[in-house]
Order: sequence, then C-alpha cells, then structure tokens
Amino acid sequence: MKRIRAGVLGATGAVGQRFVELLTRNPWFEVTALTGSERSAGRRYGEACTWRLSTDCPAEVRDLVVQPSEPNLDCDVVFSALPGSMAGPIEEAYAAAGYPVLSNASAHRMDPDVPLLIPEVNPDHLDLLATQRARRGWDRGCIVTDPNCSTVGMTLALKPLHDAFGVRRVVVTTMQALSGAGYPGVPAMDSLDNVIPYIGGEEDKLIDEPRKILGTLDEAAGAVQPAEMRISPACNRVATRDGHLEAVSVEFARRATVDEVIEALRAFRSVPHALGCPSAVEQTIIVRTEPDRPQTRLDRDAGRGMAITVGRVRPCEVFDCKFVVLSHNTIRGAAGGAVLNAEIMIAKGMIP
Amino acid sequence: MKRIRAGVLGATGAVGQRFVELLTRNPWFEVTALTGSERSAGRRYGEACTWRLSTDCPAEVRDLVVQPSEPNLDCDVVFSALPGSMAGPIEEAYAAAGYPVLSNASAHRMDPDVPLLIPEVNPDHLDLLATQRARRGWDRGCIVTDPNCSTVGMTLALKPLHDAFGVRRVVVTTMQALSGAGYPGVPAMDSLDNVIPYIGGEEDKLIDEPRKILGTLDEAAGAVQPAEMRISPACNRVATRDGHLEAVSVEFARRATVDEVIEALRAFRSVPHALGCPSAVEQTIIVRTEPDRPQTRLDRDAGRGMAITVGRVRPCEVFDCKFVVLSHNTIRGAAGGAVLNAEIMIAKGMIP
Amino acid sequence: MKRIRAGVLGATGAVGQRFVELLTRNPWFEVTALTGSERSAGRRYGEACTWRLSTDCPAEVRDLVVQPSEPNLDCDVVFSALPGSMAGPIEEAYAAAGYPVLSNASAHRMDPDVPLLIPEVNPDHLDLLATQRARRGWDRGCIVTDPNCSTVGMTLALKPLHDAFGVRRVVVTTMQALSGAGYPGVPAMDSLDNVIPYIGGEEDKLIDEPRKILGTLDEAAGAVQPAEMRISPACNRVATRDGHLEAVSVEFARRATVDEVIEALRAFRSVPHALGCPSAVEQTIIVRTEPDRPQTRLDRDAGRGMAITVGRVRPCEVFDCKFVVLSHNTIRGAAGGAVLNAEIMIAKGMIP
Amino acid sequence: MKRIRAGVLGATGAVGQRFVELLTRNPWFEVTALTGSERSAGRRYGEACTWRLSTDCPAEVRDLVVQPSEPNLDCDVVFSALPGSMAGPIEEAYAAAGYPVLSNASAHRMDPDVPLLIPEVNPDHLDLLATQRARRGWDRGCIVTDPNCSTVGMTLALKPLHDAFGVRRVVVTTMQALSGAGYPGVPAMDSLDNVIPYIGGEEDKLIDEPRKILGTLDEAAGAVQPAEMRISPACNRVATRDGHLEAVSVEFARRATVDEVIEALRAFRSVPHALGCPSAVEQTIIVRTEPDRPQTRLDRDAGRGMAITVGRVRPCEVFDCKFVVLSHNTIRGAAGGAVLNAEIMIAKGMIP
Repeated sequence: MKRIRAGVLGATGAVGQRFVELLTRNPWFEVTALTGSERSAGRRYGEACTWRLSTDCPAEVRDLVVQPSEPNLDCDVVFSALPGSMAGPIEEAYAAAGYPVLSNASAHRMDPDVPLLIPEVNPDHLDLLATQRARRGWDRGCIVTDPNCSTVGMTLALKPLHDAFGVRRVVVTTMQALSGAGYPGVPAMDSLDNVIPYIGGEEDKLIDEPRKILGTLDEAAGAVQPAEMRISPACNRVATRDGHLEAVSVEFARRATVDEVIEALRAFRSVPHALGCPSAVEQTIIVRTEPDRPQTRLDRDAGRGMAITVGRVRPCEVFDCKFVVLSHNTIRGAAGGAVLNAEIMIAKGMIP
Repeated sequence: MKRIRAGVLGATGAVGQRFVELLTRNPWFEVTALTGSERSAGRRYGEACTWRLSTDCPAEVRDLVVQPSEPNLDCDVVFSALPGSMAGPIEEAYAAAGYPVLSNASAHRMDPDVPLLIPEVNPDHLDLLATQRARRGWDRGCIVTDPNCSTVGMTLALKPLHDAFGVRRVVVTTMQALSGAGYPGVPAMDSLDNVIPYIGGEEDKLIDEPRKILGTLDEAAGAVQPAEMRISPACNRVATRDGHLEAVSVEFARRATVDEVIEALRAFRSVPHALGCPSAVEQTIIVRTEPDRPQTRLDRDAGRGMAITVGRVRPCEVFDCKFVVLSHNTIRGAAGGAVLNAEIMIAKGMIP
Repeated sequence: MKRIRAGVLGATGAVGQRFVELLTRNPWFEVTALTGSERSAGRRYGEACTWRLSTDCPAEVRDLVVQPSEPNLDCDVVFSALPGSMAGPIEEAYAAAGYPVLSNASAHRMDPDVPLLIPEVNPDHLDLLATQRARRGWDRGCIVTDPNCSTVGMTLALKPLHDAFGVRRVVVTTMQALSGAGYPGVPAMDSLDNVIPYIGGEEDKLIDEPRKILGTLDEAAGAVQPAEMRISPACNRVATRDGHLEAVSVEFARRATVDEVIEALRAFRSVPHALGCPSAVEQTIIVRTEPDRPQTRLDRDAGRGMAITVGRVRPCEVFDCKFVVLSHNTIRGAAGGAVLNAEIMIAKGMIP
Repeated sequence: MKRIRAGVLGATGAVGQRFVELLTRNPWFEVTALTGSERSAGRRYGEACTWRLSTDCPAEVRDLVVQPSEPNLDCDVVFSALPGSMAGPIEEAYAAAGYPVLSNASAHRMDPDVPLLIPEVNPDHLDLLATQRARRGWDRGCIVTDPNCSTVGMTLALKPLHDAFGVRRVVVTTMQALSGAGYPGVPAMDSLDNVIPYIGGEEDKLIDEPRKILGTLDEAAGAVQPAEMRISPACNRVATRDGHLEAVSVEFARRATVDEVIEALRAFRSVPHALGCPSAVEQTIIVRTEPDRPQTRLDRDAGRGMAITVGRVRPCEVFDCKFVVLSHNTIRGAAGGAVLNAEIMIAKGMIP
C-alpha cells in the first residue's frame, strides 16, 4: 500500500512531537509536511523543535522545513496539534481547501456536524461528515476531532457498560498527568509535593464530551442526540509525567454484579482492530484484578499506550459499581487517538 | 496550672514523634514517659529514635529512657501511637491500670462503648465513658480514640452541612500523602511518577467512621446510633509528604445553594476553642474561594495544621454540592487530634 | 527602637515575597513600600501578588498599594528583588536618590566599589562604601549586594578553613533547589524524575564570587583583592523545593586533619550575632556527624534558614578534605542574607 | 545458532527481573531456570514475583517454577542477581559445579583472579580465567563480574581519555537513581523533596573498581595491576527512577583541549559490537554538545540503555577537563552489563 502523506499542524509543541513520533513509526503514513509558529517557520524541524520525548527526533523529519500554517501543504491528510485558541479558523481553512483534518484541538469538538470520535466507540458518527460537507460547502475536506485526554479513558470504559446496563449517573475524580498541560505547562514549584485540585475548562469537557460520544446519531437531523446520563467530574493535577488515572462511580439503569461488569468490559471488541488499523490493539480494555492496579507508571504504556486499563471493579456503596481507569493522555488521549481516527477513515475508504 | 504529665506509647515511630513534638510545645503538658519496642527500650530517646521531622528532636525528651510498654509509667495520661496490630490489648491494660488512653490506633475505634472523637464535632460522645468504665470494670482509666487520618477532614466539613441540610449520600475520592503510611512506608520506586489507587483497609474506615462520629448518642443503650448516610470512598496514594486532599460530592435531604453551603461552613464554631484548648483554632473550617485552592503544599499547615481548608464549593451535576477538603494527616488527622481530645477532657474536668 | 521603614523592589515575585515575609516578622523593620511591574502597580499588594509561600500573606502589607519602581518611596532603606536584567540602573537610581539599597540581584555584585557581603565573613568590606559614594557622587545612598544562592553556603564553610589552613583549590558540585529558578521557573515536565546538569550563568558566579568575598580589602585602591584560590563548579538542578546541597573537595595550603577541620568549622563565631542582629543565629555553621546528613529536606530550615549545615567531613582521596554543605537558598541565600546585610549596617550605625 | 540456556539466580528481585526481561528479548539466549528465596521456591515465577517493570512479565517465563539456589539448574550459564551478602559462596558453588557465573554482585569483584569486566574496556582481563580455574581447581566453571552501577558510566568515559592523555586525578560527584537501591529500597518519605548525600559502601567501590578495570593484566602474576590514578567520589541519592548522572573533573598527564577530549570520546570503538554481540551498540559513548544535556530522563535510554551519554565537556578551572556522564544503572550498570559480558565470552568461544 502506498503510504498516506501526512502533515502535522503545530508540529513543534508537545502534542505535535507525539504526532511526529507516532506517524513516522506507523506503516500507513509518511510525514511530508510540518507547520509551526512564525518563529519556527523556515527553519529545519530538527533545529526549530526542542525535542522533549525520550526517543530521539526521527531522522526522516529532521530536515523538513517548518512551514507557516497556510493550507497549501504537500500531503493527503493533516493532523492538528494547534492550541485551542488558534485551531478553529485554521482547521476550517484546511478543510475548505480539501484536506481531511484530524484534530486534537477542542475548537470544533462540540460542533453539531463534527464527529467527536473514538473509533472503538462511535465509528458510525463518521456519517456526520456528509452533513458537515453539505452544510459548509466543503468538497473533499472535513474535520474529525478526538476527545479531551480526560474523556477518552472513562468513555471507553463506559461504552460496554452503557450498552449492557445503561449508565445513568457518574461521579468521577481525575488524577491527571503533567504532560496534559503541554510545555512548559505546570511550574515544578507547583507540582512537587502538591496536588492542584483544578484544571481550567477540564470539568466542562468531561461533562459534555462523553455524552456526545455515547450519543445516538440522528441522521435526519445531521447531529448526535447526546446520551442521557449525568456526569459530575472533579479534575486534579498530580505529579506524574504521563497517564490520567480516574476513580469512577456509576449508577446503572439495570442491576449488574461486579462479575457482569468485568465480563462486559472484557467482552468489548475493537472495530478498528478488526479492520486492521495498525494503531489499534486487540484488547482495548484491559481489566486487572490485583487490588492495587492500574498504577500510573506501571500501566500507562499497556498496549503501546493505546489500551486503557480498568481495575478495582467493586460495588459502590452509593451507586452500583465503582472502578479505576487509566489511559495514556498523550498517546491514547491525544496524538494516538487522532492517528487511529485517520486509520479507521482509511480502512473505510474515506481517506484519501 | 500544673502541667499534665504525658506518656507516649510507641514514641519512636512517625506518629510517636509528632506526639512528642506537639506535646513538648503544648502549654498544658509535659512529656514524662516514652515507650518503644524491645529494641529501643532502655536506651535514651535521642539515641533510640531516628528523628525524621524537620524540627530538631526536643531537648527536654532526648535523655528520657525509652521504656517497655507496661502500664506502670510515671504520667497522668497516655497517648498511643502504637501500630494497629498491637494497640488493642496494650491500650486496655493501660486503661485498666487507671490511665486515660488517648489513642490514634484503629483497634478500639468502632467498639460501641468507645468514643470516636473529633472534639469540634461530637464532644457529647465522651459521655460513653461512663458506660465504658461500668462495662469493663475500669475505675479512672478509659480509652478515647481519634479517627483515621482520611476521616477527619471530610467529617469536619460534613458536620455543619449535616446539621443544616441533612447529608444522605457521599462519594469521596482521596489523594493521600505518604506520611500516612508511616515509616518506611511507601517505597520511593512506587511513589515517584505514580499514583497508587489503593490503601489497604482505608476505604472501610471512611465508610464507617464518619457515620459513628456524626451519629447520635443513645445514652440508654450506651452506644452511638450511626448517622443514616451512605458513603462511597476511593482512596489513592499520591506523592505528597503531608496533607490529605479529598474530592467530595454530597446529596442533601434539603436543597441548598452554594452560598448556603459556604455560609454553613463558615458559621461553624469550635467548642474546644471556646473552652480554651490550646491546640484548637478559632476557625476550624477555612473556606477559600479561589478556583485552585486548597492545594496540598500551600494549605496543609493552615491553623498550625489543626484547621481544615475547604474550596471549590460548587453545584454537583449528580448530587447537590461538591467541594474539595484538605487536612493535615499527621497533625489534625493523627497526633494533633488526639492531643486535642485530651485537652477537651481536661477542660471538662475529666482529666486528670 | 524605632523601626526602620523598608521598601521592597520587585515585591510580587518569589524573592520579593520572601523579603516581605521576613521583614514583617523582623523586630527592626516595618514594610512601608512595595514596587512591582506595570501590571501590578496601582493595585493592592494582596491582590496584585499571587502569594506562593506556605504561610499566609502578612495582613499588614495586603492593603499597601504596589508602586512603580521610581525612587520616591516612603522608606529608609530598599531591598531589591529585581530581576538581574533590570536591576542595574534602577538600583543606581535609588542609591543616587539617597536610599541604601540592599540588593539580591547580580547586576552590581562584581563592581569593584560594591561590597559583596556575607556579614559573618567579610563585614569589613562595607568600608568600600566610602569609595563607592565618592566615585559615584552619592551622598547618603549606596548599594550593598549579597551573593548568589549557590555561593553563600560554600563560602561560609570555606571562611574558617581559609583562615586556618589556606584554601588553594576547590571542586564543587551543586544540587540546587527549584525555588532558585524563581517562578514559574523550571517546568515540572523537566523536573520530575530528572536532573538538569546546567544552570545558565551559575558556574561563573561560583568561580568569582567566593574569591571576592574571601578577598582582602585594599583601602588604598578602594577595591577588594580576590583570594588566591581556584574553584571548579558543576551546577545541577534537582527536584527539591528549597535548599542547595553542595559536595565540596578542598586542597589546603597547610595540612589539616578531619578533626582540625571540624574544630575550625565549629569555632566559627558570628559577628552580626554578637552585634545583636535579629536575623543572625548564634551557630552559623552547624556540623553534623551522622553519615547521611545534611539532607535537603531535614536540614534546610536549621537556624530558621539562616544557618548552614556541614556534614560528611572526611579526607579527600585527591585533595585534603571533602564535605557536604547545605544552605537555604531563598532565606540564607537570598532575602534573609540581604536583610542580615541591612541589620549589620544598622548595628554599625550606617543605616539610617 | 542454538540458543544458550540461561539461569537467573535471585530472579524475583529488581535486578533479577531486569535479567529476565533482557534475556527473553535476546536472540542468543533462552531462560530455562530461575531461582529465588525459600519463600518463592516451588511457586510459578509469574506468581512468586511481583513484577515491577513497566513492560509485562514475559509470557515464556511465567510458568517456570522458581527453584532454590542449588547448583543443579538445567542451563548453560547463570546470571547472578543475588544480594551481595549471599552471593559469595553460592556463586562459588555454581562455578565449582561447572557453570560460568556472570555476576552482578560485589562479592568477588575485587578478587585478584576474577575479571571485573566492561567488555568495551578490558576484554583482555578475561584471560584471568585460566588463573582462576587453576587456583580454585575449577574445570569449566568460572566467575566473571560486572562493576557497580556508579562505576560503569565514568569508567567507560575515562577509558579513551586514559589511553589518549593519561588520567591522573578524578573528582566525581554522583546523582544516583532510586532503582540502584533495589526494592523496596529508599522510603518515599526520604526521597520526595530531598537529596541524601550518602550511599553506604558506594564511594569505596568508585575508588577501587575503575582502577582495576583500567589496570593492566599481569599474566605472570595472574592478576591486574591497577591503573595509577586517584579518584575522589561523593555519592548522592536523588529522586530519579533510573539513570546515574555524574559530574566529573579530570587531571591528565598530558595536556588536552576540549576538542581533543571530545574527539577521543567519539573515536571510541566497541569491541563487543564488532564481534556481533546483540546487546552491544555501535556507539557506546554518545557525546552531546547542547549546554544542558545529558539529562537523566531524556538520555538514560540512549542505545537501549547500553550507551552512555557524555555532555558539557569543558575546561576545568582546577584540573584539565570536566564533563557530565549519564548511564542507565539497571541496564548498562547491572543486568545489561552482565549479559554483554556473557555475549563477549560466547563470541570468543569461552561459553558454552
């Protein structure tokens, strides 16, 4: 198969570097274009970018010249790691110019005609693209978003439970990693020996995004009917590098034993894996039964960072069930998720 | 006033050192006896004890000879920092020998005739001592316990809310400090860049202890009728030195606005402070309104570690209200709490 | 005694807050003026300043209005916490306007006519002020600097050794705390699970400053003849909040046993303490003999952060002696040092 | 090639797990035997061992039954991860029974007839084995040791410099990772926000081991003549998971510019890599020229943890040259080093 030529918008930042790392290792893609800020544009990527991952900056991209964010890149698809404040109009410009845009930014996530996609959960929401193109007058281009990093793990875990038992109410407390704040992000003075019980804007995303993702596509309306569940989040920043750990309590519409919950989680099958997507893992939801797992450091890399790990499934004294879920926030919860979104679109013949 | 002569059981451990530190600074006490393990007994405290607090080991106790845990100490009251596994019979032996025992151990907390005391919350539960002495045949001795470190902060915050609005259901996620595990406690390899979503036995304590503390003394039965509320905890160990931060969602029996909740918290008055207890602070519950407070490192020492700090009071999407509460786990939540228990007994003429 | 009215330049930053904290607790001073950036000027200090110390912002300064950095403050002396890049001309303007300036900035430290002062080490260097005023045409104003935070601990420890044995060569490796980088300073992503073996400009300061401080005042020349010693530093940033730990190897001109070195350190007497300066401690150099002390967290607060702790004094396989020295970088090594500089000037009648 | 059957002594501990991880990935070996303590013996490895690496416990060893440490294992070579206190006699028993023993323990490192081997540095020291077998009456068995984790990085860096310029004096300060202390190792309470300037026994190893490794084989004497250099170490424990960072100052016999030092380091060639050893990397010594590298977290995994990274090569104010060197302490500095020792023996036909 001929490799898809990929561009990365905002390639020098933390998420941009993850995109570059994942795409250069991915058998379906080659990286042919990178954009950056005015300060970076015109310089070689290897120079413009202070590489912060523990792997080396891939040799094949070091000599690519960083370009400004104008929609005339030499590529088949673009991945957007743009900051939320800038992403909106730039991503639209790319889509209007014919590029499929796989975005990690929040700008368009809640637009009614934009899929907010976890390919294992709601691949049918890609049908929104017909509406999107019709409404916006776009030809081949489109925008597909992936959810916020704190949304992905919990929503993946809720999917089989919602299908089996009906999720009605959720109380969730997150313990989120530093890399979720980008770079430079959180000052070390605020992180060492501390927990910060607040992440700006995060709780709102965790209230709304899972409901859209778990919602029902209304083809007539060209929109998603959000799932009828209420979610109460409390978001905290802790001193871990990668990996968002979340303590979740769930009320179901139907009764379910702990064993039934575990069985439903374990029975979950990955559509993109069945379609051969290289970033997908066979077992998206790993259930561990040791009393003290998942732990952030030990389990965040499970399934190359694309699996989530659920543990401590036990009865809830207030609702029906509670558990802990861990996901890798910059792989599963950011760049890796957007790459998988592109892969399922390729597998379905929607790209290029 | 003549100083009360205090003994500390298990004085060389982490909690024991806190007792020594707090009691030597306390105007109502002098430390006259210290006990330790067989390995320590017979040695000078300054030698037997590897002092781990950032203040120096107090000069006045360095030359005290560590004694074995037999109930013949030269003191008016004993504070127990014994490990839970040993505390039960030893504390009983001291009580039988006539010593008031202020215990930080879990052994007797849920005994029906033993007060589980937060002096600002349930000072009337001290009336259980009449039953305790009658049942057990003790003359002057008695056992009074303080709650587990994860219980104290939340229960203090719930007290005025329960009085005003009736607490029915609580979901709480804790982010607990390393010092709560004692010394050596958690290996650094398990703590650095990690969250451990499990603390053995902790969740059970957080389910039961608040209900007893907030319960009603039934004098006829010589026991406490637990408060009718359900609590669902999820306990986590994070990489902080001191300070347990807890995210709490609460359902009330009556409706309450955020302003009413804040007002109820702020109106809370400290009985032991009114009685002149030196460890008590005027404002036991501090409410902060900045979006990102309390933070573990910045707020744990508020009120010399004896106040708790509540913040982020806001509506809960699932219940009525949610907030964050922080308390110092080795002061308010351990040694300081037990010392305050002794102080209110002194103020009420129950000691010596 | 009437309190000296103190102004703080750059009062909203990390070092500025330490100045405010220390000066409001100091019996010789009252804080009457605070300056800040354009963004802060005109606002109340309590609002303009995001207070980051674990104590609360002192009540007596919260309502002071932050002023711009013009030299017309209502105070007797100014303490400068200005960033190095701005400090030079502003401090000169204050001195020219008649204010004694106690500076923590690096701008003027190596000026020949400016004392680089550790009051326990080189109080005689204050005699440079006559030259300074004459050369610069200043009347009552002057500039006195304190050394870089990494310089203070080692130089204090070297002082009695240089007097007794003659220091010829020093190899020193520092492990410096995060607070030394100010706020926001080091990103948490760069600090967690990491050592950064580089601090911009730091090693040059550690090469030059101790030689000036330990040098000889040449009154005729109106300058200091630097001590004849060579210093090779390697500076590292580690994940500690406060406290610079330094491993030092020293070659002496004369032979010295470990016991003689310890004796020399212990015999060191504090001139400012003898003069009654409230920030001075009786024992400026604490020598510990346990194998594993000083440790950053346990010993940084010794002597209210104004003492230094030396440990592991032992023979060096290459030179004569090696040891570890710890000092509190934002107290002894910054604000506290500058306050002590002011105190000795007051004690000597040079202020006001 | 038929795989060599490998046994691991002390397989359930921290270093033992690294051996298992590396050997199961290594094309030249298969793991056929594992030993453990009495508590573990008789149980399946997957059960007996609390796996602490972030990869999963390899499937092919989970069902191996842990055996006691008697020298009748079904394997061609044994790797020893035994604690230093036990390793001595057990390793001798295995060697006497005919097993080549590749040891990571300190017990036999300084024995005159035992090679202390870094295969890139002193492969000729393997000739000691003839003497060893003759003296000890061993037939096919033997003991080959690898150096202490703090020794490896510095000694590798010194090798080309000693060959080119003659190393005479070295002052080195280490900042060592937590994993070097094994598990449970350092309590988190001692690690968070702290540096411990002491590691028991470590400095002595760093004084002696490099001199033996860089020494000259005296075949007549059947021993190594230590290199004539003096080394003064200061060893510190910092809060990093893996990776020992060391600040090194060196005095040469001959003058050398910084460029010549860098050139000598870069020209270093790996003998085991030339022989095709799978654990060897082409570039054992990586020289970085950015001002702030190597950093522990970013560079410890260079060359799959088998390369060392040198940076900040610059003139020393006291000696000739100083630099920073980083090595992965549990791979290069422990299990990986011992595996490479076995590989070079295989490549040279000495095993099996």
